[in-house]
Amino acid sequence: MRILSGIQPSGSLHLGNYFGMMKRMVDYQEHSELFCFIVNYHALTSVFDSDFLRRQTYGAVCDFLALGLDPEKSVFWVQGDVPEVTELTWLLSNVTGMGILERSHSYKDKTAKGIPASHGLFAYPVLMAADILLYGADKVPVGKDQKQHLEIARDIAIRFNNTYGDTFVVPEPDIEEDFATVPGVDGQKMSKSYGNAIEIFADEKSIREKIMRIKTDSTPVDQPKPLKDNILYDLYSLFLDERDRAALKERFLNPGLRYGDLKKELVGVIWEYFTPYRNERQRLERDRQYVIDIMREGARKARQAAAVYLDRARHNVGLDYWYK
Amino acid sequence: MRILSGIQPSGSLHLGNYFGMMKRMVDYQEHSELFCFIVNYHALTSVFDSDFLRRQTYGAVCDFLALGLDPEKSVFWVQGDVPEVTELTWLLSNVTGMGILERSHSYKDKTAKGIPASHGLFAYPVLMAADILLYGADKVPVGKDQKQHLEIARDIAIRFNNTYGDTFVVPEPDIEEDFATVPGVDGQKMSKSYGNAIEIFADEKSIREKIMRIKTDSTPVDQPKPLKDNILYDLYSLFLDERDRAALKERFLNPGLRYGDLKKELVGVIWEYFTPYRNERQRLERDRQYVIDIMREGARKARQAAAVYLDRARHNVGLDYWYK
Repeated sequence: MRILSGIQPSGSLHLGNYFGMMKRMVDYQEHSELFCFIVNYHALTSVFDSDFLRRQTYGAVCDFLALGLDPEKSVFWVQGDVPEVTELTWLLSNVTGMGILERSHSYKDKTAKGIPASHGLFAYPVLMAADILLYGADKVPVGKDQKQHLEIARDIAIRFNNTYGDTFVVPEPDIEEDFATVPGVDGQKMSKSYGNAIEIFADEKSIREKIMRIKTDSTPVDQPKPLKDNILYDLYSLFLDERDRAALKERFLNPGLRYGDLKKELVGVIWEYFTPYRNERQRLERDRQYVIDIMREGARKARQAAAVYLDRARHNVGLDYWYK
Repeated sequence: MRILSGIQPSGSLHLGNYFGMMKRMVDYQEHSELFCFIVNYHALTSVFDSDFLRRQTYGAVCDFLALGLDPEKSVFWVQGDVPEVTELTWLLSNVTGMGILERSHSYKDKTAKGIPASHGLFAYPVLMAADILLYGADKVPVGKDQKQHLEIARDIAIRFNNTYGDTFVVPEPDIEEDFATVPGVDGQKMSKSYGNAIEIFADEKSIREKIMRIKTDSTPVDQPKPLKDNILYDLYSLFLDERDRAALKERFLNPGLRYGDLKKELVGVIWEYFTPYRNERQRLERDRQYVIDIMREGARKARQAAAVYLDRARHNVGLDYWYK
């Protein structure tokens, strides 16, 4: 079972990313063939500052390596290191109806928000289809917002196979339920765009400030504390196994708990939990050659896998004019 | 001065192609740096039969080599052998406004004719811009129907340079006047789509049949023949130098000329004129390895030239995340 996942190089990871996605990714690589890549070609649709894109891409690479993405177990690369995907994008374009792209929600949403309507933004789903089909992925974990894009990829794969003969694996979606909804400091779902996120590689002071801002109810100290919709309880629980969670519950249900104390405790828990990852990340940030070598090797492996499907596609459309 | 020209692998060349375009091309390579390629990626927007595309592409290669395109003097390659152009297409897409593509005549014309509106058809001008900008072409000979596409390429180059810093040469058009309008057997401009074309590599019988079908006026044999709009005169003249053309004129202006005789004569002239090319073409058709080696070397040279602009573009948008 080959699972494919593309990751936006969108900057600082937060607890929501980590518990909602990263942990699952690390889990995938134990049972499946994980293909995981940083989508810097896609990022070009909205990032026009080259230094910023370089930093974000390199940062995302370090994040994932530090957090346990194992380049021995998985294929991990940067999209722009395997330009074959853009060639496949062209081949797919010729069996992609305009209607299906015009109906894309994300294009409509983005342009409605005032992002200039570029051809890159419009063609985004074709590049995404190429990302998937180039590696013969069986399953693609997608959030609800990406579900339509996977439908487009399936549609393109089917049309291509019908037009030119069997070429691609038609991928199945693996719709991600929010199996660990992580609340932000304001109680909404944690999201960078809501400004309510706790970044896992921030310095201790920033983490403390964020945690201290968490809204708590005004239950007196000598009363039991509510568990439901309690941000502090939900966040703390993320770091606990079943037994420790039960102990935390006890503390909430018995009088005497001070939210202020618990906040300080949580700061320590977060800080310590990520300390080994943070140290590894700092090491990677410094040891650029090591990271670059890893990614070069990742690109080589990705390219090797890509060649199977790209060669087949090139032959099936007739680009190999020397073939007889 | 670098001149770039893309050629559709659209099958049998006719006299109009030869005198209207090929001879000019061969001329270019004497004074300029000619970059000339067979556009099989573009052909994919309308050809969905792989064997047919392979044959057409290989045939176009043989045509141009046989007719004097000299791979020592020029860079001659098949588009699909240099997939870098598709990567550049993606980079350009992000500075290409949707409006400019939506206003493209050729897209509107093709879909109005009932060709299904695919994304490939729509994105065609971006690929064409990439064709031009990838090689730093100074001049692009374009027919009137391609003028708008060159405008789009210029617009994209300027936008890219403005957005990311100076990267590309902004190409100049070299609008082709019909400097040798070749009439077809019915008197209209010779064109494959009008069914009035005399194919230069057809067998002698087909050429004879075509020439015999030429419409002539009913001037009696013992009268001078008109020169104006005289298809036979115009076609014959293509093969003559100034002195011989004057002699032909004399024959028209004096009584006694039989159109039937002249037609037979013209068949012989055409057949003989193309005999060395035909022989060379047959040799190339057979000696596939020789042709493939030439095209491989052409692709290598094209790729080398492309690297200059592609590397610069990749750096200027920030794909080289390892750069510091």
